[in-house]
Amino acid sequence: MAIEKQEAAIEKETGRIESFSDGVFAVAITLLVFNLRVPQLSAPLPGENPTLVLGLALLKQWPSYLTFVTSFATILIMWAGHHATFKLVYRSDTPFLFANGFLLLLVTVVPFPTSLVAQYLIGPYAAMACAAYAGIFFVINIAYYLLWWSAARDRHLLYPSVAPELVKIRSRNTFVGLPLYLIATALAFWYPYLSLGICSLLWIFWAFAFYERKPRQKTGEQDAETPGLHDLVK
Amino acid sequence: MAIEKQEAAIEKETGRIESFSDGVFAVAITLLVFNLRVPQLSAPLPGENPTLVLGLALLKQWPSYLTFVTSFATILIMWAGHHATFKLVYRSDTPFLFANGFLLLLVTVVPFPTSLVAQYLIGPYAAMACAAYAGIFFVINIAYYLLWWSAARDRHLLYPSVAPELVKIRSRNTFVGLPLYLIATALAFWYPYLSLGICSLLWIFWAFAFYERKPRQKTGEQDAETPGLHDLVK
Amino acid sequence: MAIEKQEAAIEKETGRIESFSDGVFAVAITLLVFNLRVPQLSAPLPGENPTLVLGLALLKQWPSYLTFVTSFATILIMWAGHHATFKLVYRSDTPFLFANGFLLLLVTVVPFPTSLVAQYLIGPYAAMACAAYAGIFFVINIAYYLLWWSAARDRHLLYPSVAPELVKIRSRNTFVGLPLYLIATALAFWYPYLSLGICSLLWIFWAFAFYERKPRQKTGEQDAETPGLHDLVK
Amino acid sequence: MAIEKQEAAIEKETGRIESFSDGVFAVAITLLVFNLRVPQLSAPLPGENPTLVLGLALLKQWPSYLTFVTSFATILIMWAGHHATFKLVYRSDTPFLFANGFLLLLVTVVPFPTSLVAQYLIGPYAAMACAAYAGIFFVINIAYYLLWWSAARDRHLLYPSVAPELVKIRSRNTFVGLPLYLIATALAFWYPYLSLGICSLLWIFWAFAFYERKPRQKTGEQDAETPGLHDLVK
Repeated sequence: MAIEKQEAAIEKETGRIESFSDGVFAVAITLLVFNLRVPQLSAPLPGENPTLVLGLALLKQWPSYLTFVTSFATILIMWAGHHATFKLVYRSDTPFLFANGFLLLLVTVVPFPTSLVAQYLIGPYAAMACAAYAGIFFVINIAYYLLWWSAARDRHLLYPSVAPELVKIRSRNTFVGLPLYLIATALAFWYPYLSLGICSLLWIFWAFAFYERKPRQKTGEQDAETPGLHDLVK
Repeated sequence: MAIEKQEAAIEKETGRIESFSDGVFAVAITLLVFNLRVPQLSAPLPGENPTLVLGLALLKQWPSYLTFVTSFATILIMWAGHHATFKLVYRSDTPFLFANGFLLLLVTVVPFPTSLVAQYLIGPYAAMACAAYAGIFFVINIAYYLLWWSAARDRHLLYPSVAPELVKIRSRNTFVGLPLYLIATALAFWYPYLSLGICSLLWIFWAFAFYERKPRQKTGEQDAETPGLHDLVK
Repeated sequence: MAIEKQEAAIEKETGRIESFSDGVFAVAITLLVFNLRVPQLSAPLPGENPTLVLGLALLKQWPSYLTFVTSFATILIMWAGHHATFKLVYRSDTPFLFANGFLLLLVTVVPFPTSLVAQYLIGPYAAMACAAYAGIFFVINIAYYLLWWSAARDRHLLYPSVAPELVKIRSRNTFVGLPLYLIATALAFWYPYLSLGICSLLWIFWAFAFYERKPRQKTGEQDAETPGLHDLVK
Repeated sequence: MAIEKQEAAIEKETGRIESFSDGVFAVAITLLVFNLRVPQLSAPLPGENPTLVLGLALLKQWPSYLTFVTSFATILIMWAGHHATFKLVYRSDTPFLFANGFLLLLVTVVPFPTSLVAQYLIGPYAAMACAAYAGIFFVINIAYYLLWWSAARDRHLLYPSVAPELVKIRSRNTFVGLPLYLIATALAFWYPYLSLGICSLLWIFWAFAFYERKPRQKTGEQDAETPGLHDLVK
């Protein structure tokens, strides 16, 4: 009984870290909208079609939309990864809290390089802007790796029931992003568009990495469990 | 016992998706206030009544207020719908998560077309602004339909106890908005005010759709249950 | 057993409304900081003390600080009242949800009149700015009254165990703000500072109204309960 | 049974204060990103390397980055302290709520002096800006001390099981920041950089103060408990 109580207290602790992190993720992802600016137009000239003028002005902002979607999707995937990590963690210690804080700091920074790219993607400053954009995701990946490592090293924060294979797969999946974002950062100086393209594709890759792993896991769960659950609810 | 544990874990997962979504909805709905700008006035001319001058300047911003209220109410109704959907869902899978992410992305975008309309409703750019405004709600409706469909298709994410008639009613109610928002988008090019009016009326319609369905459901619940509950609490 | 399940489901429903409302309150209260603007100074003239120049520039912004504190405290008190109301409510219906939505809409609006007053408190536009400021709190009070009324009318959303005297006290306390904010709104046209002063004092009054009621209630609870609790924990 | 119910109700109350506070902390910490502004550049001159131009423009903003990191880390540490305090508190009363409200007000203010320093750290206004920055943290520390004092005075809001030594250590740790921030505020008028350096170092100190205390506590817990937990989960 005393143990159950203690366990509940620990869960509550992790719970508050999770909910605070969720709050930061949710605010950071929503603040990205400030990259979408209303185009400032003067009155249309005689003979101009105002609908076309505003329509074109909106279309010309495509770098804003592209980086908005890419940043949104990347933060969302990071949130999902954060969520997946915390599901395996049953307690926290100080290095883990630091790693989480470092990750959150970088997540809140994302709107900054996003608006940098939105403003400078077209023109001579594209290289530096895209390098900063890919670079921040490289650093975020490091932070994410630190978070995972601080939890999974010697499995000391993980639930004892977590399968060793799952730990191995996660470690590999977390690591795979590092060289890719590093390449994207370096490439930006010569091919800014290619760099941005890699960043846009990487979150799709993460998403499919999730997609591939999940169903197999789910299927396994369902075999063992759904019939029982159905019985229970009916 | 193992099943109950597993069930609890699944609920927790959906719970965190819900709370993250709630956070995004709450931030997006609150950021709408940035559409309300303080009018920038120079000192009143001699003979002018400053109270009247500021009062009129505030009144002249009525497009801001109208779109603020419409966007706020629409996001709130979408949140209620999101909430109602998740109440029937007991687990999640990847397509469902994607649909939810797509819906959240669009929800965070709402402040952008809102401020577009607030700025251009009066003047030659009204048509394009209103088309963008109605258009975003059209796309949101698609996203909402995808969310519902990814959960209700073969009922594979719904609680087994959800009545088939409820699934049918929800599917129909979710679908009914699509043609209406499409019409509003098309109409905007000729009658921007009418288009905005439809958007303003549609959330009132959704609200009443909720209103009509709820009481009947509630009454049914109460017949079966409130006496027992009263007994329990007394 | 079926009843307990149903009851849990209802509590969860109210829970999500509460947590969404909390999110909106938390964001709205934090956005008030945007009223505090960094003064834009050019280089100090020769002979000027730059520390004094910036210090005076910061002091000259006192209307921003005053309205910031007043708005923050008022929203916080409203949140506490919202919280106190929901503690007595065990289920929700559509009018209650509407009243809550209307209240949230007004809460998110607060940063707007706040920055209106911050900008125009000194100068000829003070009357209109303060009238708008007091006026919004008047409308918020109506919304808060509607929320309470939609829950407490015939006690139909309240826990059966809520004492009738508590309902009466709450109804009276909720109502008492209405005429006061109405007076503050009307006074603003002649005495804007007095109006702002009433708004600043009213939240202190609400706070003390809370303070006075709470301890008595608490003491009663403690008499009956703390000894037992101590026994339980030791 | 009645006691357990009452206890659960009290926990829920504190729970909502915590989750609201978490929301405010999360939003305030995320809004700091608005201090990071995209440098506004005109087209590069012939012969200039645009990558270098933007790169240098970004580097020149180092005061923004420094204050961003310092403010972020300080708010995060304050959140952790807030969290640690609430873990020992099992009920709330009005002075405690006021102290919490005062702390939250100051937390939401942090972005303001942060952007003051970011703008004026280089130039003649640095002294006043850094004094305001250190000063706000001084006041926050007072608020944090009030929060702790309102809970720990006569231990009247603490769980009865909290060890008296822990209360003593916390009281001392909370108090130690006050003179340090006061010194930093006074020093700012002569040595603004030193003052900012103290503020930057203090959160690292807090972090290590946490680090030192935690493991010892944890080890004690583990001795008593982890074997049992392992047994339970296996």
